[in-house]
Amino acid sequence: MKALYFDKVTTYLEDYNKPVPGPKESLIKIILSAVCNTDKEIRKGYKPDFHGVLGHEFVGVVEESNNRDLIGKRVVGEINEGCGECIYCKTGRKTHCMNRKVIGIADKDGCFAEYMTIDTDLLHIIPDEIPSEVAVFTEPLAAALEIMEQVHIKPSRNVAVIGDGRLAYMIAQAVSLTGTDLTVIGRHKEKLINFKKFAKVATETNETFEVVIDASGSPSGIVTAGRLVRKKGTIVLKSTYAGKTDIDMSYFVVNEITIKGSRCGPFEPALQLLKRGLITLPAIELYELKDYEQAFESKAFKAGFKF
Amino acid sequence: MKALYFDKVTTYLEDYNKPVPGPKESLIKIILSAVCNTDKEIRKGYKPDFHGVLGHEFVGVVEESNNRDLIGKRVVGEINEGCGECIYCKTGRKTHCMNRKVIGIADKDGCFAEYMTIDTDLLHIIPDEIPSEVAVFTEPLAAALEIMEQVHIKPSRNVAVIGDGRLAYMIAQAVSLTGTDLTVIGRHKEKLINFKKFAKVATETNETFEVVIDASGSPSGIVTAGRLVRKKGTIVLKSTYAGKTDIDMSYFVVNEITIKGSRCGPFEPALQLLKRGLITLPAIELYELKDYEQAFESKAFKAGFKF
Ligand SMILES: [Zn+2]
Ligand SMILES: [Zn+2]
Ligand SMILES: [Zn+2]
Ligand SMILES: [Zn+2]
Repeated sequence: MKALYFDKVTTYLEDYNKPVPGPKESLIKIILSAVCNTDKEIRKGYKPDFHGVLGHEFVGVVEESNNRDLIGKRVVGEINEGCGECIYCKTGRKTHCMNRKVIGIADKDGCFAEYMTIDTDLLHIIPDEIPSEVAVFTEPLAAALEIMEQVHIKPSRNVAVIGDGRLAYMIAQAVSLTGTDLTVIGRHKEKLINFKKFAKVATETNETFEVVIDASGSPSGIVTAGRLVRKKGTIVLKSTYAGKTDIDMSYFVVNEITIKGSRCGPFEPALQLLKRGLITLPAIELYELKDYEQAFESKAFKAGFKF
Repeated sequence: MKALYFDKVTTYLEDYNKPVPGPKESLIKIILSAVCNTDKEIRKGYKPDFHGVLGHEFVGVVEESNNRDLIGKRVVGEINEGCGECIYCKTGRKTHCMNRKVIGIADKDGCFAEYMTIDTDLLHIIPDEIPSEVAVFTEPLAAALEIMEQVHIKPSRNVAVIGDGRLAYMIAQAVSLTGTDLTVIGRHKEKLINFKKFAKVATETNETFEVVIDASGSPSGIVTAGRLVRKKGTIVLKSTYAGKTDIDMSYFVVNEITIKGSRCGPFEPALQLLKRGLITLPAIELYELKDYEQAFESKAFKAGFKF
């Protein structure tokens, strides 16, 4: 089958072996899959130990499964497969499993291929109302909803999102559904225009906020967030980047600020919001798998592959 | 009256004017007051704008007050006087008031003097069971209890305290009352011995913890805490220090760790614990006010002044 294989370099293969599902796994025929920043980071060397098929954001159809009810169904999938044995798996934190396999990221082939196998427990059926081109946003929307899972956002207070890229767009839209007074702070006026449907926008502000979400993808995000957040308020860090930041931690002690790292989130609420059309998204730009360099270099809101 | 006055340098005065309480204030005759690290930091230049009488940890007797019930009563006092008007005062965060006066620290004479005035609302009556030499620990114990105010410490999980100094001693003792599996990690074996009554002690460990409290007073505390804390766990930062730390914030994002700054806490629960004798403390070393240099240089667990 066709697959995009990574082992220090990326190779397009037409003869990669079609995978065989294990006893608790399902075989998925991929409909489309999307490129995410993590894929780009892996190609730059972020996960030197990983070799295998790239990709973790997908929509597919179940062809084989230990759960017969799923066969023929259109699905999305979570990406972390826990071991079931470690302290994290045993305390409801399997996305942090110490021995986890992560689709297309660690110890497990990903979805930039015609077929993929996945732990059946990680699958979620896509409601018919959601086109595949929209369902592929389930994973990033779930990651945005993780903020509401971790922090109580009060409708009567206010929130700032730092950043005007893709991540900020998903987060700001999800946060705006709380009804809170939301401001998006970014550097690019031409990008900020897109946020005006659901948020106030600014390139700078003297306001302070109860919750500040850093989705800037920049090491300076935490510093900006520290300046914008109210005392006893909360900073949510959503973006990762290589390298360290020089931080005056005493400032956070004296002002009793909470900083929360935030990553993957819950799929079912994301599917509910997509089903109801409450999240609007630009169209994904789809490429043939062999044209992967174009997909990785695309400046579209989201690029991906159709199979 | 006798007073220790600070204005870039510290001066012992015998003729400082006895203060006159405002309409909402009480006049306190100081019984004893204690030196805290913040006082030492102020003398080193931490608050360049402050000039006035130093000191904020005290036990005294109310001589005059707008609240007649308090007259003659032995009291301790909170240190932050809010304006009542700002966003923080109006949302239950008056210790973070933007215009606050802080006894002996900002815009308000402190307790290293025979008399002091204080906003009457900040006073707490000391139960008769608590000797003044113990009651003077109310403020630092309240600061330790702020951790339980901010973080749900589950008895069935585990907690680490980093540090083996005074701050760590107060915190570890307060945390130990939750019944949680508590480990104190310090550098000095001779100091760690004192913690053995209520905690496990170690100079290093490979264990991981749900909650890690940094009371090390060192910029490296956050780094050690990051290594010890479990994924999705919480770090509480209790110590302040001058200077920045080089931190890989992405680590906290990926592992969804919460970092909480923590400062002043609730006085009434602290008084309850002291009344019941649940916190044991070494004796305070008391000096005459004129011998202030000795008090500031004392290596005792706590040094202070008697009046
Ligand atoms: Zn992704
Ligand atoms: Zn596990
Ligand atoms: Zn103090
Ligand atoms: Zn105020």
